[in-house]
Amino acid sequence: MDLISLDDISRAADVLAGVAVRTPLLPTPWAAGAAGPVAERGELWVKPESLQPVGAFKIRGAYFAVASLPAGRRAAGVIAHSSGNHAQAVAYAARAFGIPCVVVMPDVAAPTKIAATEALGARVVLVEPDRRETVTHELAEAEGYAIIPPYDHPDVIAGQGTVGLEIVADLPIVDVVLVPVGGGGLASGVATAVKALRPSATVIGVEPELAADAQESLREGRLVTWSAERTYRTVADGLRTPTSELTLAHLAARLDGIITVTEDEILDTVGLLARSARLVVEPSGAVSVAGYLHHRAELPPGRTVAVVSGGNIDPATLARLIAPATA
Amino acid sequence: MDLISLDDISRAADVLAGVAVRTPLLPTPWAAGAAGPVAERGELWVKPESLQPVGAFKIRGAYFAVASLPAGRRAAGVIAHSSGNHAQAVAYAARAFGIPCVVVMPDVAAPTKIAATEALGARVVLVEPDRRETVTHELAEAEGYAIIPPYDHPDVIAGQGTVGLEIVADLPIVDVVLVPVGGGGLASGVATAVKALRPSATVIGVEPELAADAQESLREGRLVTWSAERTYRTVADGLRTPTSELTLAHLAARLDGIITVTEDEILDTVGLLARSARLVVEPSGAVSVAGYLHHRAELPPGRTVAVVSGGNIDPATLARLIAPATA
Repeated sequence: MDLISLDDISRAADVLAGVAVRTPLLPTPWAAGAAGPVAERGELWVKPESLQPVGAFKIRGAYFAVASLPAGRRAAGVIAHSSGNHAQAVAYAARAFGIPCVVVMPDVAAPTKIAATEALGARVVLVEPDRRETVTHELAEAEGYAIIPPYDHPDVIAGQGTVGLEIVADLPIVDVVLVPVGGGGLASGVATAVKALRPSATVIGVEPELAADAQESLREGRLVTWSAERTYRTVADGLRTPTSELTLAHLAARLDGIITVTEDEILDTVGLLARSARLVVEPSGAVSVAGYLHHRAELPPGRTVAVVSGGNIDPATLARLIAPATA
Repeated sequence: MDLISLDDISRAADVLAGVAVRTPLLPTPWAAGAAGPVAERGELWVKPESLQPVGAFKIRGAYFAVASLPAGRRAAGVIAHSSGNHAQAVAYAARAFGIPCVVVMPDVAAPTKIAATEALGARVVLVEPDRRETVTHELAEAEGYAIIPPYDHPDVIAGQGTVGLEIVADLPIVDVVLVPVGGGGLASGVATAVKALRPSATVIGVEPELAADAQESLREGRLVTWSAERTYRTVADGLRTPTSELTLAHLAARLDGIITVTEDEILDTVGLLARSARLVVEPSGAVSVAGYLHHRAELPPGRTVAVVSGGNIDPATLARLIAPATA
């Protein structure tokens, strides 16, 4: 299977300049204070992709995929199926190009996510969860829309990989990169960029224990999918999806390993990031920092960057996690 | 009175590289969606200084002031009096230089701010609010500490001015800059940088209605101070301090005006910024965005940058503002 290259990611970076926010690496004196002398445990920087216009790194892959369509094909419009951040990312990209956009969502999607997608000008079509793909393909066929997949596409992976490019540019001596793994697009792109630019660095994926299908897939050497009943138990709704053959091939070739975090660790970290890093982070976005704070023994030492992938969280849940005693 | 120049700010920027976070300008599709077509109202970008290591822009001025001390003098240590973010900024800078640091705080200071300052290695001395200055000078005299004032110093103003330098570098066509005014150090520095680099831009200060002493001072043409009883009514605790002769001279020469916001506007904006921009912002930090959202008629049109100055807010208050219905 063909894997994407550093060149693909560099091309994506050129296209994304001025579109995606160049997120900084944020030092974390609060994490240092909690865990003893710096020399013993390395240092943590956070890359807050939660600050992208749609609240997640997804804008990178979606925009680059839309930009990479032939102009004539793009003009007919785009379609995506997504229960979350990818939907808003494709809608945002489509609006930037002034083209039609349809998003197929499961009818159980959060009302705030539906409203946010419609506010960006997309038409939202609600369907039963297991009919998402079928309806998407039918509409694409009937109307001539180009399908923008959430992760199973080389352009999407290349777009997400610009996160890794920026990490090494801002911290050339990085030792460890922690990245959430859901469908695997972000982890595939980041691992590709980081390992190409700094082969000595270790890139580790982080999954919820309750959706550790990518970890099992890598261990088994084949694509293992977990049932929706099983993965829907995790609060990290962005990480419930299985990898694809394409992303799994990237992870197998370029990721150094996957660690898992518990639900309590995820939720605690959401509250901590709001109180200490002044960041609003969704559970899926917090797994990387949760991995650093709670699983140091499983990680190599050194200068560590945790990718905080998104910040779209229900306000009532956020409020409860920020100040547990007042809930 | 001698005012600082763009050259002073450029020197500060060199010293602050790698110390202060290079905060990005964040686009605000949520603000655009709420207020009609872009052409009618311009566009808003937010500069989140809340993401600095101590949660506020104060790190810039404090660090540059400490760095600018003669090495021998600096080695003896530094002292500051502050009820809030300046305290942590000086402590952070002192730790970076490995020198002693004492912070004199009013005995009514929030326990979280005292603890945060001590966690950075400073010795905190609690005194009655009206004895802060006296005790600071006595300790400085007795121990040889250099006093690092929160705003009444050219180096501090130059450090804060790097915020303006970055705004024009990232958005060279900026039309309007909105900046909170408390002691006036940030507004003085930002106005100096922005007006020097882009004379056509308008720089507007924003104050709480309940602490509009700088607005009154500019109108009267002399330094007017409001009583502590009066300014302590605003929730924006970072903006209760009066300007100094030095900062007022900068504001009179370089600021285009000051608008005021109400307490309700400030509190609503704190909640909105958490929900929509995924930023944890303190009331003082939210006044600039509150000014944009609620006082458009008083502002020039065009591409607008609002400086969000800090993010140190009590977790229980933040939780209540994020999800008012659950409180």
